Amino acid sequence: MAVSASFLPPLPCLKPTLSSYKHLCPKACAGNFEGDEGCNKMRIRKENDGWKIDFSGKKPATPLLDTINYPLHMKNLSTRELEQLAAEVRADIVHTVSKTGGHLSSSLGVVELTIALHHVFDTPDDKIIWDVGHQAYPHKILTGRRSRMHTIRKTSGLAGFPKRDESVYDTFGAGHSSTSISAGLGMAVARDLLKKKNNVISVIGDGAMTAGLAYEAMNNAGFLDSNLIVVLNDNKQVSLPTATLQGPATPVGALSRALTKIQASAKFRKLREKAKGLTKQIGGQTHEIAAKVDEYARGMISASGSTLFEELGLYYIGPVDGHNIEDLVAMFEKVKAMPAPGPVLIHIVTEKGKGYPPAEAAIDKMHGVVNFDMETGKQFKSKSSILSYTQYFAESLIKEAEADDKIVAIHAAMGGGTGLNFFQKRFPDRCFDVGIAEQHAVTFAAGLATEGLKPFCAIYSSFLQRGYDQVVHDVDLQKLPVRFAMDRAGLVGADGPTHCGAFDITYMACLPNMVVMAPSDEAELMHMVATAAAIDDRPSCFRFPRGNGTGVVIPHDYKGTPLEVTILK
Amino acid sequence: MAVSASFLPPLPCLKPTLSSYKHLCPKACAGNFEGDEGCNKMRIRKENDGWKIDFSGKKPATPLLDTINYPLHMKNLSTRELEQLAAEVRADIVHTVSKTGGHLSSSLGVVELTIALHHVFDTPDDKIIWDVGHQAYPHKILTGRRSRMHTIRKTSGLAGFPKRDESVYDTFGAGHSSTSISAGLGMAVARDLLKKKNNVISVIGDGAMTAGLAYEAMNNAGFLDSNLIVVLNDNKQVSLPTATLQGPATPVGALSRALTKIQASAKFRKLREKAKGLTKQIGGQTHEIAAKVDEYARGMISASGSTLFEELGLYYIGPVDGHNIEDLVAMFEKVKAMPAPGPVLIHIVTEKGKGYPPAEAAIDKMHGVVNFDMETGKQFKSKSSILSYTQYFAESLIKEAEADDKIVAIHAAMGGGTGLNFFQKRFPDRCFDVGIAEQHAVTFAAGLATEGLKPFCAIYSSFLQRGYDQVVHDVDLQKLPVRFAMDRAGLVGADGPTHCGAFDITYMACLPNMVVMAPSDEAELMHMVATAAAIDDRPSCFRFPRGNGTGVVIPHDYKGTPLEVTILK
Repeated sequence: MAVSASFLPPLPCLKPTLSSYKHLCPKACAGNFEGDEGCNKMRIRKENDGWKIDFSGKKPATPLLDTINYPLHMKNLSTRELEQLAAEVRADIVHTVSKTGGHLSSSLGVVELTIALHHVFDTPDDKIIWDVGHQAYPHKILTGRRSRMHTIRKTSGLAGFPKRDESVYDTFGAGHSSTSISAGLGMAVARDLLKKKNNVISVIGDGAMTAGLAYEAMNNAGFLDSNLIVVLNDNKQVSLPTATLQGPATPVGALSRALTKIQASAKFRKLREKAKGLTKQIGGQTHEIAAKVDEYARGMISASGSTLFEELGLYYIGPVDGHNIEDLVAMFEKVKAMPAPGPVLIHIVTEKGKGYPPAEAAIDKMHGVVNFDMETGKQFKSKSSILSYTQYFAESLIKEAEADDKIVAIHAAMGGGTGLNFFQKRFPDRCFDVGIAEQHAVTFAAGLATEGLKPFCAIYSSFLQRGYDQVVHDVDLQKLPVRFAMDRAGLVGADGPTHCGAFDITYMACLPNMVVMAPSDEAELMHMVATAAAIDDRPSCFRFPRGNGTGVVIPHDYKGTPLEVTILK
Repeated sequence: MAVSASFLPPLPCLKPTLSSYKHLCPKACAGNFEGDEGCNKMRIRKENDGWKIDFSGKKPATPLLDTINYPLHMKNLSTRELEQLAAEVRADIVHTVSKTGGHLSSSLGVVELTIALHHVFDTPDDKIIWDVGHQAYPHKILTGRRSRMHTIRKTSGLAGFPKRDESVYDTFGAGHSSTSISAGLGMAVARDLLKKKNNVISVIGDGAMTAGLAYEAMNNAGFLDSNLIVVLNDNKQVSLPTATLQGPATPVGALSRALTKIQASAKFRKLREKAKGLTKQIGGQTHEIAAKVDEYARGMISASGSTLFEELGLYYIGPVDGHNIEDLVAMFEKVKAMPAPGPVLIHIVTEKGKGYPPAEAAIDKMHGVVNFDMETGKQFKSKSSILSYTQYFAESLIKEAEADDKIVAIHAAMGGGTGLNFFQKRFPDRCFDVGIAEQHAVTFAAGLATEGLKPFCAIYSSFLQRGYDQVVHDVDLQKLPVRFAMDRAGLVGADGPTHCGAFDITYMACLPNMVVMAPSDEAELMHMVATAAAIDDRPSCFRFPRGNGTGVVIPHDYKGTPLEVTILK
């Protein structure tokens, strides 16, 4: 790919040395003096057990990061310097996001991973695809966009996710989950057809791994056997808890159990790697036999979980500590050096919110935040007596469910975002978090409806696109009374174009049996929840926006009154 | 669920005996005399190696089947009688479909399975969900619809797939693939919430198993741990080869390799089952330890493939010969008797077209047929110099690809149906069959486009619904030049409502960057293929119908000329 000149670093890389840092702080931190004020910078220093950041200052001193504009500038850094860089990037992200708001903890979890990837691989020729993309802040900082990070998620500012228009380093736009392996496989196959030699690396979270798209892509990758590196970033987070109450749900799905089992067997890893190393080197017929032995042996040693990926044809390596830069760099260099490894899955284990104590301590790990106090992590949320549409939806659904025990609720790893965590708390046996699996959410709801239950399927407008065939074929064509609560309909502000719910009226209203509703305020929303509960002979849906209600008078006790619906023949 | 009276068998079951068959044929077959004409029935008889059908007669004699109107009538049959019933059902299907056309070989492959399921389980209280549903002919014959089988796929006739409106035995409508586990899990969860006790059985093919929806459902089933029986009908067919040329593709995807490995290890099965039986009975703490040993042991014995399902939390049993009624009945009775098995996957191996030599010999196994000569299997296809729209599409795409080596083609297990088998033959390295995985097909195409290739993604209009989010989020929003060839747009005749491509103009034309084209004849289609090839700065799509062209003059050499496109701002 031709790289436009403006994207390239303006100057050749100069390896920074400690002696080039001026004005070292007398408190033995790496901060600069600022005249008579003395040192007001956040202190970042190396201690025996790693780099420490004191978040009580105003702004981090980042002498090493200040010398890094593009990945090229990181190539010659030592492990110690990469570790220092990680500490500075981490401090820089906390500082910036404390002022702008945005996705915090996912980015903090992949600081070391991002640095190791950009240190070892040669972007933008090598392609890194960030799945979902809310973890791309370190990537943006290290690829020429640090000075614009204060504009993130703002009009004309940086996107909150990777965006191809924004940088040649953003190889594939994201925002929805689980696309990275498919896109990466496409890039790998294109590379081979075009006789190029670059690497392709898809970075995908354990949560995103539950979506069928990821499975389809792994199955195809195993079949095509193209050289492709999949980094499974396992932070035991299944989801995007974009609203509060109870924070993220316990990881759901059998897959997360399998991953836990792998981690538990880490002590067997070295033995296993040894066995692997032995057999991978042997060629031809002998290799096949040895590989079989190896496979069994590994089955005995690392047991469960890894085999899932290996059945799909990916060569499994892991688990690796995703905060240990030295290990990460060694692993990536080894994989990069393999001449034709086929699809490889490197399983790394990271911690969301790593290195920022308020995030580590928060139940939602401070996944998505408004601006906050850096020292305490306390967010500056506006107090309003008017709730969000999401909350009015949840409250009125709870009221309906109190009156009718056939009502059940389904969401796809969005208990926070859809407000169904409230429902879950009230009716734990009647709320189903199916993981990031919108297709299954819809057909599962259809199955529930066949038996006489009254399912409410709460999925963001733009995410329901992923279950569209299921809406058409499994629900609407069979005229099953599934109710779709489409949150985040229409424009979604800072969430940006990937999350824009622009198409739901079009794609729903064309369906023959579907009743489509759109409230003009929160009171109407609550009546429409009641209406959907009452419509039991066909599917129905209602769409409502991101943000707070308009402040109208709402129904007493949050319980709506069904509206009259006239079905035109 | 209350069963409407009209669906119930009119009379109590009477076990038929051989002595109740009148007018036995002097040729020792089970056929009836028909006056002076002598015996003109197809002969069905038991030989040493099983039941044999002589397809040279006019109509099968089906004395046993004639006594079976509903599953209730099969309850008391012996294994030998069930086998005879299978032979008669098989003959009856071949006879009926030879006159009506329809899906032949999938149904022939599940005759024994259908009989065993209906013999062991108590439908309609127990729920059987047929995935895709083209294999449901034996099910329809045995659930009160035999007399209407001649109306299948005709106006006001029986549907070609299970349909809830048609029978209480059709628990979930199908037509698109891979929905059965999600729907079944919904029914199982509803059963538990409603404190019922029925069984739920999802029957899914190995091809349907490659779709992400099935994976999402298995992952959720493993997590919820509801009692659910999944029958994996493994006939080594990945797809629906609904058109010709080379017949079905070799099964693609790593999963099919894994299944093959399991079959190869069948000799270890008994040992393994023994180990399993031992450990399953032990309770509590001891059980956990024993189960672990068992898991390892099984890993050593049956090795690969099965572990994929077990990682997802399904209890794997198999592989079982799907044409051995005695084994099937024994297996189902054992599973039915388990008090709380959680989700169980029974892997059975069957042969498409089983028992009808012309289908067994055909490269496409006579998957979808028009009417045919029963003795030879020769189909009565009309000869026309006008080709199908599909063929005009394929021919003109080949012409474009001859002129531009950046053009590549992607389909989702529909090389026959989309005409891309022709393209595959001409450009084997530039055609990608990704399996039943429409989501991946679209995002994979997007990945190819990022690197400068020109992908044509050929997916039926109604199946593209399954990749809608990928069209919106991965292609259109990024303005990537992926071309969508939407075959079977609009009404699709005998393929029925599940395959009706009614919504594509709506769901595509609402997207900001998409160029949407609809030709009025085959010549325009070919120009639009050329137009799509030429549009390289944004996505485009064109829709065309099932069936033959209109007979207009087509471009010389099948090569279209790009139309002028004006983009309105």
